[in-house]
Amino acid sequence: MQDFRVIKSRENSLIKLISLLQTSASARKEKRLFVLEGLRLCSDAAENGIRFDKLIVSFSAAEKYGGAAEAFASNAGECIKVPDSLFSKISDTKSPQGIIAVCRLPEKRNAVIRPDGRYVALENISDPSNLGAVSRTAEALGADGLILSAGGCDPYSPKVLRASMGTVLRLPVFIFEDFVSGIRSSGLLSYACVVDSAAESISGACFTGGCVIIIGNEANGISEEMKAAADRLVTIPMTGRAESLNAAAAAAIAVWEMMK
Amino acid sequence: MQDFRVIKSRENSLIKLISLLQTSASARKEKRLFVLEGLRLCSDAAENGIRFDKLIVSFSAAEKYGGAAEAFASNAGECIKVPDSLFSKISDTKSPQGIIAVCRLPEKRNAVIRPDGRYVALENISDPSNLGAVSRTAEALGADGLILSAGGCDPYSPKVLRASMGTVLRLPVFIFEDFVSGIRSSGLLSYACVVDSAAESISGACFTGGCVIIIGNEANGISEEMKAAADRLVTIPMTGRAESLNAAAAAAIAVWEMMK
Repeated sequence: MQDFRVIKSRENSLIKLISLLQTSASARKEKRLFVLEGLRLCSDAAENGIRFDKLIVSFSAAEKYGGAAEAFASNAGECIKVPDSLFSKISDTKSPQGIIAVCRLPEKRNAVIRPDGRYVALENISDPSNLGAVSRTAEALGADGLILSAGGCDPYSPKVLRASMGTVLRLPVFIFEDFVSGIRSSGLLSYACVVDSAAESISGACFTGGCVIIIGNEANGISEEMKAAADRLVTIPMTGRAESLNAAAAAAIAVWEMMK
Repeated sequence: MQDFRVIKSRENSLIKLISLLQTSASARKEKRLFVLEGLRLCSDAAENGIRFDKLIVSFSAAEKYGGAAEAFASNAGECIKVPDSLFSKISDTKSPQGIIAVCRLPEKRNAVIRPDGRYVALENISDPSNLGAVSRTAEALGADGLILSAGGCDPYSPKVLRASMGTVLRLPVFIFEDFVSGIRSSGLLSYACVVDSAAESISGACFTGGCVIIIGNEANGISEEMKAAADRLVTIPMTGRAESLNAAAAAAIAVWEMMK
């Protein structure tokens, strides 16, 4: 079994790095690393072939989850034990389980958008709970992947990882710096989901071949540029006084219509 | 214009009552009162004919939102001004706008379930964000009301009110102490949404006449008793590895299929 090095100082560079990766999307992007926290997410990731660069367990987690910790250790480049009090400083949760893995961001060089696939695209989604919920829905309904704009929230943030129940690690995720061009050049038929009673009802839309359903930002919806570039504008007809459906609810209905 | 009484003490009984109503579902139930916080929710409520028992504004909100505060005051039994520091003690938000209304819980004596209506029922939903999201979806898609089990989270909690964008104040809400009996005696055709590949796909289900779609608890789904009592079991077919859809996403798809 792999040896666990003990770190006790808050000033240790790895400890500082983990705190940074927990809170900063730009640090994750720059270092090309992200953090998985908790038994469930770490197990999910290991099962999906995601290697742990580092594994950090608290003293009490090493006792409590001995078997799991050993299994995780065999999937890790380096293993570290820290006192519970130090672990609570690097945890993103109120009641930490005491297990953190530092992983490399997936390299997308080999991942390609399949021309006959069904994708869910989110333009500048800003709420991690929404992104997580949409990812969960996309996987549950069998979509082939997520396409995100670089301006939206980071899919590798702790909140998104939790809300997605780890599905962002299983689904292919594409992040487009230029979202509109990326969608256009994907070769997929694009359906922009808009709040506009003049648009075609999504229940009548015909989804054939490779296609992508696009959901917009929570407050502003889909950008004018994306609307103009989309192959179709579709809408979920609404009757109530609510200004619109929540983005995750709209996505659930739209993905359902695309996949069924 | 109505006079505003000034309260400066944290020991004042009204101040204590508001703190209690913000945090305790049982206090809301016992006192038959709930709290609305923020311009948006208070405006929504006033437009829907909900009278304010008390209106509490912070000193700075009285200046900043003078016109709105006056309009709210004309809808209030009693008006109180408090220092900003005291307001922040009774607020449920990190950046309070400085406006709170105390309102009486709606009396449901006159509200009846329409035999030809379309309802959304939630059995023991425990997450306020989910209840809020489902309420928003139900209103947006034109459902006639929400049916809740008494064991679920309180629809008049600050979190639910916010997440629902005030829709729980506009939709008729029925809370059944005995959920299964209440659904059975409603006269509505009941569709329990279950995670069971042997159940009928919801896309093939025929919704005619008065009916109710039932969504279960986030962790445990629909109770065995409710499953046995339901007229139909329907399911949202899933292909991914996610254990299930999030309750709010499942509800969005189910309500969409019922209403379209």
